Amino acid sequence: MNNSVIEIISIGEELLIGKIVNTNAQWIAKKLTDMGWKVRRITTIGDDVNEIISAIRESLSRGTKVIITTGGLGPTFDDKTIEAISKATNRRLILDENVLKEIEEKLKRRGRTLSEPAKKMAYIPEGSKIINNLIGTAPGIILEHEGTTIIALPGVPSEMEDMFEREITKILEFKHKLQEKELTIYNVPEAELAPTIIELMREIPNIYIKSHPKTELGDKITLKLHIYSQKYEDKDWGKIVEKIKEKIREKHNYCEIEEI
Amino acid sequence: MNNSVIEIISIGEELLIGKIVNTNAQWIAKKLTDMGWKVRRITTIGDDVNEIISAIRESLSRGTKVIITTGGLGPTFDDKTIEAISKATNRRLILDENVLKEIEEKLKRRGRTLSEPAKKMAYIPEGSKIINNLIGTAPGIILEHEGTTIIALPGVPSEMEDMFEREITKILEFKHKLQEKELTIYNVPEAELAPTIIELMREIPNIYIKSHPKTELGDKITLKLHIYSQKYEDKDWGKIVEKIKEKIREKHNYCEIEEI
Repeated sequence: MNNSVIEIISIGEELLIGKIVNTNAQWIAKKLTDMGWKVRRITTIGDDVNEIISAIRESLSRGTKVIITTGGLGPTFDDKTIEAISKATNRRLILDENVLKEIEEKLKRRGRTLSEPAKKMAYIPEGSKIINNLIGTAPGIILEHEGTTIIALPGVPSEMEDMFEREITKILEFKHKLQEKELTIYNVPEAELAPTIIELMREIPNIYIKSHPKTELGDKITLKLHIYSQKYEDKDWGKIVEKIKEKIREKHNYCEIEEI
Repeated sequence: MNNSVIEIISIGEELLIGKIVNTNAQWIAKKLTDMGWKVRRITTIGDDVNEIISAIRESLSRGTKVIITTGGLGPTFDDKTIEAISKATNRRLILDENVLKEIEEKLKRRGRTLSEPAKKMAYIPEGSKIINNLIGTAPGIILEHEGTTIIALPGVPSEMEDMFEREITKILEFKHKLQEKELTIYNVPEAELAPTIIELMREIPNIYIKSHPKTELGDKITLKLHIYSQKYEDKDWGKIVEKIKEKIREKHNYCEIEEI
């Protein structure tokens, strides 16, 4: 098992019908990458309990170190994430008295009393730790299950981000800073640069270079290069970028390189 | 097998490191939903040939009617989608002379000659149909495989969208128009509205109502309701929305409803 591999499971029909863009997954993936973790897969599914169970079980069977879910934690009929986690891990749902009290107090402040759907949010899989929701109502959970940490966060971005910053950055070890550099390369088609990129990635260990063609009709040939690594210190990264630029200039002497 | 079930497979490290948001998946999901299709899952993976093969095989094993991939079609070492499709479906890669000629002509117009990486883009899985790329270089493919249609589109949004509009809307049957309506509901907490939503979805067949809490600290309680269906004609949809509003007013007489 690779100890830094994470999967994200995004839950919500609104993602599958294209009503919203999955900015939660991108936000989490960026945070984790900055901390040195490797996101292997992002799975987006609807509010269907069997689909969620399948997605969690599949991820567990891949030996994922950490699974982070977003969405499906609220009080409505289609908030199924907690039920799915309990079923996927064969754990009972248990009423958490502290969470129940918390929900009651939040409702009271709004002049409301506890309803059955609100009470549902106080049931959590046996053995879970609670992540308090300081913005909304539904709590998140952290569950250690047979070597995998399962983390369930809300789908509302402000609630998810607050929980992540407060609690998740504490439990997920910082591994290594992400180093990155972007270059714009003119006058070299992607296919011609390709062998140079392969050579560079062979010569310099643990770097990743990705090219994206940006040429519009009639423009001069333009490529964006994204160079990154989770293995270098600041003091070495500048030298590596220089080495990459030198090699590209040497192999493609008609090119122009611009730093972004 | 449900004849309207589609899965999207998004391929690219830039998605897994959170460098970009997956707008391609959202764009495709919206288009398909508008045509009456149901997107069941969106899987995002990196440029790893084994990961792509696994994702395709898993989707095939779920009996998916149509699989649409985006990304990984270019000339670079990490463009692995075509290789993965050929391996996942046990088909040989065959040099397509027409595609090769097309690529050569595109390069010639830019004053370039054919390189090995560019030639790679002319190899396609046996039995595939070609989707011409009118904006960039890498062609897309359509492959009928044991009852599943596998469609591979580029990751560059302008190229992907152009191919989808030109070719995919022709081969995917239009099933039914998406009807939708958004309402803002004030003064009802999500948990109190939840049983009403369940009742409505029982009374009115084939509608989906999703609530999203929008209350900020200190605001009055605010919910967005998104109501949609792929089963109603224009003439009936207005009546259904009225029925939903009436029921909500009847059950929660302290609420305010605003149409968006």
